[in-house]
Amino acid sequence: MSIDNFYSENIKNALKNDPPGEWMPTIPDNCIRLSSGFPAPDLVPVDSIQEAVVQLLNDEQDLPLHYLGTPKMDKLKQQIQARLSERGMHISEKALLVTAGACQAIDLIARVFVDGNTVVAVEAPTYMEALEVFQNYTNQFISIPIDEQGLQTKELARVLAEREAQGLPLPKIVYTIPTFQNPTGTTMTDERRKHILELASQYDFLILEDDAYGELYFDKQPVTLKAMDHENRVLYVGSLSKVVAPGLRIGWVAATEEIITSLYWFKKDLDHPFAQAIMATYLGNNNFDNRFNTLRISYQERCSVLLAALEKNMPKSVTWYVPEGGYFVWIKVAGADTSILLQQALDQGVSFLPGKYFFLNEQDGKEWLRLSFSYSGLKEIKKGVEMLGEVIADWF
Amino acid sequence: MSIDNFYSENIKNALKNDPPGEWMPTIPDNCIRLSSGFPAPDLVPVDSIQEAVVQLLNDEQDLPLHYLGTPKMDKLKQQIQARLSERGMHISEKALLVTAGACQAIDLIARVFVDGNTVVAVEAPTYMEALEVFQNYTNQFISIPIDEQGLQTKELARVLAEREAQGLPLPKIVYTIPTFQNPTGTTMTDERRKHILELASQYDFLILEDDAYGELYFDKQPVTLKAMDHENRVLYVGSLSKVVAPGLRIGWVAATEEIITSLYWFKKDLDHPFAQAIMATYLGNNNFDNRFNTLRISYQERCSVLLAALEKNMPKSVTWYVPEGGYFVWIKVAGADTSILLQQALDQGVSFLPGKYFFLNEQDGKEWLRLSFSYSGLKEIKKGVEMLGEVIADWF
Repeated sequence: MSIDNFYSENIKNALKNDPPGEWMPTIPDNCIRLSSGFPAPDLVPVDSIQEAVVQLLNDEQDLPLHYLGTPKMDKLKQQIQARLSERGMHISEKALLVTAGACQAIDLIARVFVDGNTVVAVEAPTYMEALEVFQNYTNQFISIPIDEQGLQTKELARVLAEREAQGLPLPKIVYTIPTFQNPTGTTMTDERRKHILELASQYDFLILEDDAYGELYFDKQPVTLKAMDHENRVLYVGSLSKVVAPGLRIGWVAATEEIITSLYWFKKDLDHPFAQAIMATYLGNNNFDNRFNTLRISYQERCSVLLAALEKNMPKSVTWYVPEGGYFVWIKVAGADTSILLQQALDQGVSFLPGKYFFLNEQDGKEWLRLSFSYSGLKEIKKGVEMLGEVIADWF
Repeated sequence: MSIDNFYSENIKNALKNDPPGEWMPTIPDNCIRLSSGFPAPDLVPVDSIQEAVVQLLNDEQDLPLHYLGTPKMDKLKQQIQARLSERGMHISEKALLVTAGACQAIDLIARVFVDGNTVVAVEAPTYMEALEVFQNYTNQFISIPIDEQGLQTKELARVLAEREAQGLPLPKIVYTIPTFQNPTGTTMTDERRKHILELASQYDFLILEDDAYGELYFDKQPVTLKAMDHENRVLYVGSLSKVVAPGLRIGWVAATEEIITSLYWFKKDLDHPFAQAIMATYLGNNNFDNRFNTLRISYQERCSVLLAALEKNMPKSVTWYVPEGGYFVWIKVAGADTSILLQQALDQGVSFLPGKYFFLNEQDGKEWLRLSFSYSGLKEIKKGVEMLGEVIADWF
């Protein structure tokens, strides 16, 4: 019996791509992990989560352990709504869906809006997990390059006009991380934000705004596309993974009631009552603003140390984008192949992610690499960049 | 802007069906809930789970709160493997996928094996959540009736032969709950188990075996289809929802390495590190056998009380299947319409699920209803059946 004979069209399409997760390099123990886009271990609120669980189960007993869960799950929605509202996004309860992290949110959106006939526009470079999701449902993509000011909307406009003139199908959805982008750390300017919304209206597409890093600004929080959107074209995906704890898997989609109802058709893992109730209890005990401030100060400091170390240790030919928040610095090593560089860096004891993992066309990422300042401590960051500087100097 | 213009073929198909979850009737507070397929509140191990969380976070700190989680997640797989092995199912680590409950497991399987061209065979009646999942990807179904000995495999054989003779497409997958079925509580006989495996081989189909209730036998545990399968045709779905706590959302698929790899293409919510690590810690502290024995004794007692109350309170025209485990008793009220009956029962203060919710053709369930003995206490069960007896007596 050959299992291939049983495969659906969906999986046949998906199998044409690289296996999911294949791109994660194996990192030796004791390596300084400038590759990891994880929150810092000392910023994960272990004690507060422990307290929240004890309190939750003392107060509510078996309730959060059943299928339907507890009023705490409504509470979580209200907490998310309140925070979004402070940021200019006024979302009704029925227009908000809590998901198992941003990844599930993106997958649900893909199932509702993407099929084999759908053209999806993505940033180049972009978050590869999202790209892998879209690749399960279509193989029609448009890549629009990013520069220091985020997605190049003029280039998007040019491509759209050209496709329209040529009678080619237009994208139905544009996936963007406008704020502290993964992997580039760049932030779309206000002007470009207005422009992409105008283009969405003109060319009739939806925008999937992934705002996983939006709370982690250093000086000033950008206004989201969702807050600027008057046509309900923005499907806003958020997450508490970067600001509380990824292991609880709490994300959401904010859109319209109609869209959320559609997403529910595919949300077949039901709610996650215990995780959602724990998060609600934790958030009830902890002030969002205090928490975010702590994170911002700490990540800004880590970023400063990383940038200073780059200034000090990198050859002149190495350049980078200076982020205004988030987790990442995007670095160009002109003339290098960062995949080969990675092997040498791992031998030295420091890891990063080569640029090729973030592009549909891997060649486009050859000279680039992503450093994360979120996970490692200050001394490690300094030491790691020193090592990387040596590896790069040796290259030339 | 009309959102319909953006919909994928998947959602357009799905929207042809009833909205998900629509079938759950609203049950007034203080109603005796013989409708709820939940574990008994007093059998959910609240204290042990609380202990497990405290211990886990004391021991491992932030580890289970990150994306990648902890070695505890491998431990959970080993615990599941060990239990399956005791039941004659020897599954390698790579042939096992931990999921967010059985529902996610079924959804992943549907995406990999079901598309618009796929015929799916289901039991009549069957678990409606699973049916809703399949309906997202196909609208071609064959319904095979159940009797007191489970799925009528002779009828399945007849339908298969007929379809083959007529040149109609054959089912690629048969979905069955062979043990303590939802909603009928019936168990497929050994003879029929052999027969369905023979048919799978003869007509080249896969079997999705849903064993959510398999540990909850009263006297004797049936051998699973998976344990009898020599051709790797059985995709075995299990869950800890009915035997530990549904709110943690822990289920799994046991199949072949190749199938599990395929499922991973669509498992885009990643792992659920915290929930999985809590479950592993809980299982490490608690003996499976002791736990299952406690549940079996308690549910058998609840079932006995329910059956005795039925004998005492039901008119002669009411009949039922006597279950050998699980959560449910399936009852025929000849001549009634159980949907109308439900309204009267709710007014009296007792709930059940009308049969129509479990059939593709709702008319087939008109005279049937499902009672659950899992959730309510002994006194409530007795009282609830008394009320129901009065409502039914009033009907005639």
